[in-house]
Amino acid sequence: MQRTLKPFSFELLAGDPGCGARRGRMITRRGVIETPVFMPVGTQATVKGMLPEALDEIGAQIILGNTYHLYLRPGHELIARLGGLHDFMNWSGPILTDSGGFQVFSLGELRKISEEGVAFQSHLDGSRHLLTPESSIAIQEALGADIIMAFDECIPHPAEREYVVDSTARSGRWARRCRQARRPDDGAALFGIVQGGMYRDLRRQSAEELREIGFEGYALGGLSVGESTELMYEVMDYSLPLLPEDAPRYVMGVGTPENLVEGIARGVDMFDCVMPTRNARNGVLFTSSGKLSIKQARYREDESPIDPRCDCYVCRHYSRAYLRHLFRANEILSSVLNTHHNLHYYLNLMAAARVAIEQGSFTVFRRDFYAQREQTVPA
Amino acid sequence: MQRTLKPFSFELLAGDPGCGARRGRMITRRGVIETPVFMPVGTQATVKGMLPEALDEIGAQIILGNTYHLYLRPGHELIARLGGLHDFMNWSGPILTDSGGFQVFSLGELRKISEEGVAFQSHLDGSRHLLTPESSIAIQEALGADIIMAFDECIPHPAEREYVVDSTARSGRWARRCRQARRPDDGAALFGIVQGGMYRDLRRQSAEELREIGFEGYALGGLSVGESTELMYEVMDYSLPLLPEDAPRYVMGVGTPENLVEGIARGVDMFDCVMPTRNARNGVLFTSSGKLSIKQARYREDESPIDPRCDCYVCRHYSRAYLRHLFRANEILSSVLNTHHNLHYYLNLMAAARVAIEQGSFTVFRRDFYAQREQTVPA
Repeated sequence: MQRTLKPFSFELLAGDPGCGARRGRMITRRGVIETPVFMPVGTQATVKGMLPEALDEIGAQIILGNTYHLYLRPGHELIARLGGLHDFMNWSGPILTDSGGFQVFSLGELRKISEEGVAFQSHLDGSRHLLTPESSIAIQEALGADIIMAFDECIPHPAEREYVVDSTARSGRWARRCRQARRPDDGAALFGIVQGGMYRDLRRQSAEELREIGFEGYALGGLSVGESTELMYEVMDYSLPLLPEDAPRYVMGVGTPENLVEGIARGVDMFDCVMPTRNARNGVLFTSSGKLSIKQARYREDESPIDPRCDCYVCRHYSRAYLRHLFRANEILSSVLNTHHNLHYYLNLMAAARVAIEQGSFTVFRRDFYAQREQTVPA
Repeated sequence: MQRTLKPFSFELLAGDPGCGARRGRMITRRGVIETPVFMPVGTQATVKGMLPEALDEIGAQIILGNTYHLYLRPGHELIARLGGLHDFMNWSGPILTDSGGFQVFSLGELRKISEEGVAFQSHLDGSRHLLTPESSIAIQEALGADIIMAFDECIPHPAEREYVVDSTARSGRWARRCRQARRPDDGAALFGIVQGGMYRDLRRQSAEELREIGFEGYALGGLSVGESTELMYEVMDYSLPLLPEDAPRYVMGVGTPENLVEGIARGVDMFDCVMPTRNARNGVLFTSSGKLSIKQARYREDESPIDPRCDCYVCRHYSRAYLRHLFRANEILSSVLNTHHNLHYYLNLMAAARVAIEQGSFTVFRRDFYAQREQTVPA
């Protein structure tokens, strides 16, 4: 299908007077994205358990695809021949793809890093592959993603300074190669990813190098890798101001509802995380007053919905007792309904945050968010 | 919730001139059912992978619940306290429950039959239980089923005549106890089940005994238990005429699309089977030209829908290549989409059969059905 390519743009609509929270609007070739935004993860060309229509219903504006998984199975060339990832999975809204870096670096023994890229063995069949900045970009372009990510190394935590110095420098060189590898006629936006581990000066160097190369958006990588919540917020605090005001800021792989609220307060525009979907399949549900494990015996005869304050499809039609039954019986509908609710919770939280920023009341919103779960706003 | 109880009724609307096919209308307290009808199986208070709204969308008129499973987990008393099975699972249409007999008899070593009933151990935790005609009826009434089935033994095949004589006689006595055990204020219909194995005279005896007791509907049990298709049709041929003309006729646990068409041609009004749902989860899909195994390599890049003649949601939006990918990736959506298509196929087949009978053209319909799959009408 031929599509008219529109330029990527980002506009800041409002800022909160009490903190760094910002309300923005991204325009991609496949639609508008109101920010701050949470992006559900659709690893293998499907957000696990969610029909595209259900994603629409709960207000998903953009979803994620995973380069590593799609490259191995069914293959990006096959997807391209079938019209691209959007047609393949019946999702017409924007898609962001990761670079594959995070997954191949997670393979441990099965991968080897060189300047050229990362040689790795498939977790599916042990076959050997090489992922480079150039091939990562080519794969993401073949998939037809609307936002594509630079190929980088997500540095584990803790990591020696020397390792972080080398890795961050290499990710910088790779970022430049990604920029150069872009097909000029492709209408997607390319985002750079700031690394530098938990070292403030290295984060600064990385951010400056990326700004010098120039990207449509900037991500913070290497967070939510085992560091404390306090440290994560500290890295956000000193890294986000290093990024251009007029470009979207994306914190990758983050996080809990609390992390989202704190990220927004610090000026983050985009988030993604498997937490709502993975937790759903394990029976852990998000509510306005905190998490709830649906398998617990206390919900055996509980007629109330997951969250009495929630108006999602699941909370309107099903009791905790029924959802507990489905979970214990290992029924498919357990994952389907739990995922629907959890993603609705995340997307609804973001929608409410957007309204609060527009109204200049995000500070109140943040305090209420914590008060409902009997917590206080973190220092 | 208090509901106005309406009497159960069945009306014959049309008969096909060329065979025994009949077009009827059943009225239950929770809605009208146009027959012939296929009833999707919802064993554990859910039709695996199907939201109630999706069942509505594909035209499901009535679904099945399983007494054995629901009695053990979450328990019929719990479901009753929560407002009954309909509210519990968010399905407002009619529900038929089986008696639990089929499942407890399938337990083999774990069960012991006596005149009183069947003592068995739970397949979940080994706990000991006794299911009797009286308790089966009480459970089904507690669940709030709209059509409840008499407690009987589903006789395996092959079986010695002596065993079939004894078992059928006992099922007859149990049927009488079921009739007597009915709560007078319950608005459900009670169906009797003809047994007698593959012995014509025993089927006759069983049918006569049930007619003498009197039920709102009559089922043929003990089919699809390993006998040949020819023998199944033969038993239908001589058993169905033994049943009252003016009551619905239900062949339990049957079967393939071919079995449905042949059953209809012989005057069957109701069917149920796990085949469309179970096959879906195993990647076996029904089409107008026969079955298709979606895992096959030949579908790797196949852009066409499962069945080009099908207009279901899945065939309108997804390619065989995508469905093959979901199956291989073991994704939840694989079961969801495959089940949707297969149940749509079954329900659509029944809807088309109903139209054909109304038009007096079921003989043509039946011939076309076989011609499309390059088969001929069975003798």
